Amino acid sequence: MIQFEALFQISYGLYIVSSGNKTSGNGYISNTIFQVTAEPPQFAASCNKDNYTAEFITQSGAFAVSVLHNDTDPDIIGRFGYKCGRDFNKLDGMDVKYGETGVPIIMNDCIAFLEFKVVQTVDVGTHLIFIGELVQAELVDDTKEAITYLNYRKVRKGLSPKNAPTYIDKSKIETKIVAGSLKKFECTACGYIYDEAEHEISFADLPEDWVCPVCLSEKAEFIEVQ
Amino acid sequence: MIQFEALFQISYGLYIVSSGNKTSGNGYISNTIFQVTAEPPQFAASCNKDNYTAEFITQSGAFAVSVLHNDTDPDIIGRFGYKCGRDFNKLDGMDVKYGETGVPIIMNDCIAFLEFKVVQTVDVGTHLIFIGELVQAELVDDTKEAITYLNYRKVRKGLSPKNAPTYIDKSKIETKIVAGSLKKFECTACGYIYDEAEHEISFADLPEDWVCPVCLSEKAEFIEVQ
Repeated sequence: MIQFEALFQISYGLYIVSSGNKTSGNGYISNTIFQVTAEPPQFAASCNKDNYTAEFITQSGAFAVSVLHNDTDPDIIGRFGYKCGRDFNKLDGMDVKYGETGVPIIMNDCIAFLEFKVVQTVDVGTHLIFIGELVQAELVDDTKEAITYLNYRKVRKGLSPKNAPTYIDKSKIETKIVAGSLKKFECTACGYIYDEAEHEISFADLPEDWVCPVCLSEKAEFIEVQ
Repeated sequence: MIQFEALFQISYGLYIVSSGNKTSGNGYISNTIFQVTAEPPQFAASCNKDNYTAEFITQSGAFAVSVLHNDTDPDIIGRFGYKCGRDFNKLDGMDVKYGETGVPIIMNDCIAFLEFKVVQTVDVGTHLIFIGELVQAELVDDTKEAITYLNYRKVRKGLSPKNAPTYIDKSKIETKIVAGSLKKFECTACGYIYDEAEHEISFADLPEDWVCPVCLSEKAEFIEVQ
């Protein structure tokens, strides 16, 4: 038996993984970055094959990881985590520096960054695991704590987007529907909560073309929650 | 430039990875377990080739991961993290259950466990990355929080053992030596602190065959710390 709640006990951080060059590039939010060897320092990153960034990593043979802190602007998570770089340039207006390999490194809300050259790519089905050897690492701000995925899920009610390795189909988790005059509706794509108590308009009365303010999912993607 | 302090900003949990069968088996402490795909749920575990458990995983084609909680008995971490199963049977006297694949699962201080069959093994130099497909997952205790590697390092002053992917040679980190009548000495293998204020005997006067009470490292492995 697989009890999906057990999977929530695995700890992760939250990062922006970026790649590309000075003329084009992209980045996405990832929670699955981890060190696999100490000598030399090598890290693994699991990236959905459909991710636009995967194309840049494959082309450039390099990627960067920006560690986000606890007070990261939700717009940064929305921009890099729930929108596609094929639709607009995610790097536009961002604080970007370029690494030793030439890849863009996102400095917004970044407390440390690491840069890698890809030494191995492993096909695991829906995702590719990029094994990267560390070429650069810098601690940018030691006054803030790195955000953990647990904090992201608990405090921000964030959920994994559909392309993430840790995405869980909400229908597999027991959901309690609660009756009451003021209701809450949760975006099943990103976890944003539309709380009727905080808005002048009921969820039902929102126009049908209304979209999630964080991830732009359609109204139909929302479910009523406690 | 590689600033090793930046690597501390990557978040991990702390787990016992175990494998074997009903007659023999072993387990080790790992912080590098992460999900790599959602459909089907697959996880990766980076394991040093020298780890005794790696032999059992290779032989059985399966492994289990026990998630440890915040109040985990330090003896459990010492037993599985800093001692070698070639020297004694780590599973003796432990609370062990056997999974669907037949591997032992360590239930001591375990709040959730996951069991995997290996579907791919990736050689990354000093370590093997075992890609496991989830066959079983159970939440055992939802009243306790999973221990994070940050908590382990901060609260318990724990450091990665030499076989860990996240092991860092202490000589690469700036160490402040402080003069004073009562000194502290840290085990460079496991992070245990010998604080002279808490003992009747000075560190210098400890016999030369004295060993670290947590990981059994020799006295020479200790360095003076602030």
